[in-house]
Amino acid sequence: MKTYSNGEIWAFEGKSRATDDGAGVILGLDGGATSTVCVCVPASAAIHLAGETAAESVKVLARATAGCSNYNSVGEVAAKETLEKVMAEVIYKAGISRSVVRAICLAVSGVNHPSDQQKILEWIRDLFPWNVKIFIENDAVAAMASGTMGKLHGCVLIAGTGCIAYGFTEDGRQARAAGAGPILGDWGSGYGIAAQALTAVIRAYDGRGPQTLLTNNILKVLGLASPDELIGWTYADQSWARIAALVPVVVTSAEDGDEVADKILRFSVKELADSVKAVIQRLKLGGEDGKSPFPLVIVGGVLEANKKKWNIGKEVIKHISNDFSGIHPIHPEVRLHLILQFL
Amino acid sequence: MKTYSNGEIWAFEGKSRATDDGAGVILGLDGGATSTVCVCVPASAAIHLAGETAAESVKVLARATAGCSNYNSVGEVAAKETLEKVMAEVIYKAGISRSVVRAICLAVSGVNHPSDQQKILEWIRDLFPWNVKIFIENDAVAAMASGTMGKLHGCVLIAGTGCIAYGFTEDGRQARAAGAGPILGDWGSGYGIAAQALTAVIRAYDGRGPQTLLTNNILKVLGLASPDELIGWTYADQSWARIAALVPVVVTSAEDGDEVADKILRFSVKELADSVKAVIQRLKLGGEDGKSPFPLVIVGGVLEANKKKWNIGKEVIKHISNDFSGIHPIHPEVRLHLILQFL
Repeated sequence: MKTYSNGEIWAFEGKSRATDDGAGVILGLDGGATSTVCVCVPASAAIHLAGETAAESVKVLARATAGCSNYNSVGEVAAKETLEKVMAEVIYKAGISRSVVRAICLAVSGVNHPSDQQKILEWIRDLFPWNVKIFIENDAVAAMASGTMGKLHGCVLIAGTGCIAYGFTEDGRQARAAGAGPILGDWGSGYGIAAQALTAVIRAYDGRGPQTLLTNNILKVLGLASPDELIGWTYADQSWARIAALVPVVVTSAEDGDEVADKILRFSVKELADSVKAVIQRLKLGGEDGKSPFPLVIVGGVLEANKKKWNIGKEVIKHISNDFSGIHPIHPEVRLHLILQFL
Repeated sequence: MKTYSNGEIWAFEGKSRATDDGAGVILGLDGGATSTVCVCVPASAAIHLAGETAAESVKVLARATAGCSNYNSVGEVAAKETLEKVMAEVIYKAGISRSVVRAICLAVSGVNHPSDQQKILEWIRDLFPWNVKIFIENDAVAAMASGTMGKLHGCVLIAGTGCIAYGFTEDGRQARAAGAGPILGDWGSGYGIAAQALTAVIRAYDGRGPQTLLTNNILKVLGLASPDELIGWTYADQSWARIAALVPVVVTSAEDGDEVADKILRFSVKELADSVKAVIQRLKLGGEDGKSPFPLVIVGGVLEANKKKWNIGKEVIKHISNDFSGIHPIHPEVRLHLILQFL
């Protein structure tokens, strides 16, 4: 991986045009284990957002994308570099320099504890040592805000490479479940689903488990000749997103009638639904009888991608609504409303 | 981590005494995910071993230990350095130089495929570019040989930080099961047991699983105040041995009556027994009726360590003997016999 010195990555600032409107800009960053998106909007946009203007009408000055910024997955050096690069790129594309940035809202997966916030705050403060407001939250907070026009109330479920359930009451209490990463049993995540599928292939090959279509389907996608090459493939690069990229193979195998793949998906649906239900119960979002209405924001590749026979997101919602009939599922399009939440 | 240049680590050779007997020496190396042991014996010892002299009577010129040499756990750079350091140390302690090494037998966990052997062969050939015989096998092969006076027949189960079952027929066929590492479902390994325990703590904290003594017991051992600090602890250093070191806490919790811990251990016992049974079945080691006698060599901290109420090794043997009454369990003391196997 190429590493940049601070000077090198920000060298463009010497020749920046000054195109902002004088009120400065805000950076909004949404970072996960697969990709990181950063947008640059005029600071004045916060006023529009506060007025509940559709997020789509806010003028986005620039947008940049990068890879994983969850340091639990790729390590601190790589995650920090991703954050710096994506912010530098968005500032470059906007044709401005760092000095006009008024606030930065980072919603990053892997932020689980105040010490995580502190660590990332120090990274960002190094890059913006002057008076810039910096807000750091778990990416679930951004996902929630994006589904509810900025209001933090209800529950959000993210299931992409990782997964997390997060809930908010109207009086400001919060709770979460899962989001603990692959070592700590996030079996509903893309990584969790794919790891179960890889394990099933090993078990079938060992003679410890039933034969499965997953064997041929996964080997074909990975270009491997035999299951005994899977061990080497798996440990050659342990970034979570690389493993999670096998989810579509699991879904296809289940749709083609493979019982092993189907069982994995059903287990993962239950895991995701259980995480959401744990949050709802702790916050009593469904009221005393469990039937009060509240939004359930659904985000992430695992919940969105499959539109054929096997629809994981739909199954998860069905499981949850059996116990909490008041849920209003929302699939948000944009995630700008986090900015409002903090300003 | 300090890294050494080749010149630096081998600098002592310039002033080596020449204490070998003229026939040269053999290095035997047993490497796992927790520790790596290297011994230096006179090449003439191979004759004693061939005569089935007790391994204890072979003169060990020097012995050195180091950390993890499984590159799936710590990466290639660290694993290679561990191998080089432990061999340099044993040669230094023996008071010789590399030039008197006639053969090297490396039994290293993580060797699962011919490409793994090739990779390690290239590392070792770099250090011993002259005519030295080099043999590279999975550490299960060394464990088998050590339990059967060098004869590769029967089955071996290793459960330390990692786990693997390996079997050999008298006519030279081999089979293995598990040994695929933590991502690929080695739930009977020390890492697997500890990861399940950590997951149980997270689930209890989330409200997704039953309360368990594991919470207080693990937090106390790790010096953490709350389960929400476990995520940070887990991903701060993902070496397998660090996670697996929690196994004694799981055993103690089960012995103190914790049902969650007990269930984890019972599941892991079944996993280990299933791996052995898969190997036995594929090789028909128990004959047509499953009752033929054959040795079952049992190695590793998970199977050896607990001597109180909960004895994992004993439970695994009980499970296997229900189906294969001919097993002769062996707990080997030393692992020198691998050398014989190759010479």
